[in-house]
Amino acid sequence: MAQEPVIILVRPQLGENIGAAARGMLNFGLRRLRLVDPRDGWPNPAAAAMASGAGRVLDAASIYPDVESALEGVSYVVATSARKRELVKPVIPPEGAMTELRSRIRAGQRPAILFGPERTGLENSELVYANSIVEVPVNPEFRSINLAQCVFLLAYEWMRSAAHSDTRSQSAPVPADAGEKSHFIHTLMQDLDRAGFFWPPEKSPGMRQNLKNLFMRMELSGPEVRTLHGVRRALQRRTPSGGSEAPAVMQADGGCGE
Amino acid sequence: MAQEPVIILVRPQLGENIGAAARGMLNFGLRRLRLVDPRDGWPNPAAAAMASGAGRVLDAASIYPDVESALEGVSYVVATSARKRELVKPVIPPEGAMTELRSRIRAGQRPAILFGPERTGLENSELVYANSIVEVPVNPEFRSINLAQCVFLLAYEWMRSAAHSDTRSQSAPVPADAGEKSHFIHTLMQDLDRAGFFWPPEKSPGMRQNLKNLFMRMELSGPEVRTLHGVRRALQRRTPSGGSEAPAVMQADGGCGE
Repeated sequence: MAQEPVIILVRPQLGENIGAAARGMLNFGLRRLRLVDPRDGWPNPAAAAMASGAGRVLDAASIYPDVESALEGVSYVVATSARKRELVKPVIPPEGAMTELRSRIRAGQRPAILFGPERTGLENSELVYANSIVEVPVNPEFRSINLAQCVFLLAYEWMRSAAHSDTRSQSAPVPADAGEKSHFIHTLMQDLDRAGFFWPPEKSPGMRQNLKNLFMRMELSGPEVRTLHGVRRALQRRTPSGGSEAPAVMQADGGCGE
Repeated sequence: MAQEPVIILVRPQLGENIGAAARGMLNFGLRRLRLVDPRDGWPNPAAAAMASGAGRVLDAASIYPDVESALEGVSYVVATSARKRELVKPVIPPEGAMTELRSRIRAGQRPAILFGPERTGLENSELVYANSIVEVPVNPEFRSINLAQCVFLLAYEWMRSAAHSDTRSQSAPVPADAGEKSHFIHTLMQDLDRAGFFWPPEKSPGMRQNLKNLFMRMELSGPEVRTLHGVRRALQRRTPSGGSEAPAVMQADGGCGE
């Protein structure tokens, strides 16, 4: 079914770029487009005009309110980003990234490529969902790549990767999807909130982001996410001097009051 | 002098495409642009608007009446062409073409890349000037590549061809060493032991191994390992009604007294 990566444009501004991106995708056989909160609404006549024969890609596009929901069913995410970020992620060139996606698809995974808005690129709060960053080698004196060009380039590398695709077998189990990981992190952060972990307050946003980044970029199987939930709960119930352990509350992931 | 190929756009129709082509050129360090008989004259405000920071490439562009004059000083020509032609020419993919251009430049030659107009592509009477044809591998059901995308793609391959000794860039900080991670895991497992996590006993070895595997395969920075220690401790100190918490053990990790 998912024999190709999903292209996700996050908060794209210009319909022209969306249309040109769709055209570039179809040039290299990519058809699955998702849009997160396009600035000028949807459908967009400027996009249709630029798609120039690739209107079917636009017609089939799905719209989402945010990155997290757009990652529905996706189990591996590469994000395009030109700027250096504080987030710790593997950074790979386009060719390597597409080869990686191919081998993941062969292993039954469902990858996506994430593109940020024209002026600002992806926010760090969106980049945290990525397993890795793809960085286009570019003239250091003129780094600003047009959004549609960037989509086009990765689509091109996608097609090229078919030619020299390796047959590295992946014995990895089916990975958890982004939603399962995201649920774990939100629950963990709630627990940590109650424990006063995010302190001092002015550092709290950065701490949250780093923590989220740390777990989101991991490749975890479904059972491993459940193990992490178990770890989280177990750590909270180690009160040697006893007291019963409010099982109902534990089930709800809501804490360990006595 | 000519350390890079000249880009020649033959009878380009849309100023937008000329501007976007200039931007794409500069993204990959190409600056030498020649225009053959642009449809809407020159200079072209639409081109300037689309160049978006690469206006200097447009400003330095030269205008020629035909292909032959535009090849002034050029000693090797590759032409882009999507359609099959009756002319007998070597046909090479983008990557191979750019490698070829580099070796010719090293040999003192002056190469150019020729691009046709948007709708029709190069005439056979123009293609005859080419030493070889570069053909982009493309979806056979949707072959029509936007002119600016095509320039962008070859400029990208030009830059890539410089770096075939490509060292993959890692912006990641120094990773934690195995010892730091291992220490974290052992400490975590001690905590979990006391919480009765590894249960039933016959499954304990497998559970331990899976947990260790989960964390050891992660690439973590030193600060991230310390964050995980913080998370571990924070989860354990959230005991609202407070029994004492085996302080000797806790202190070993920096403590979490109340």
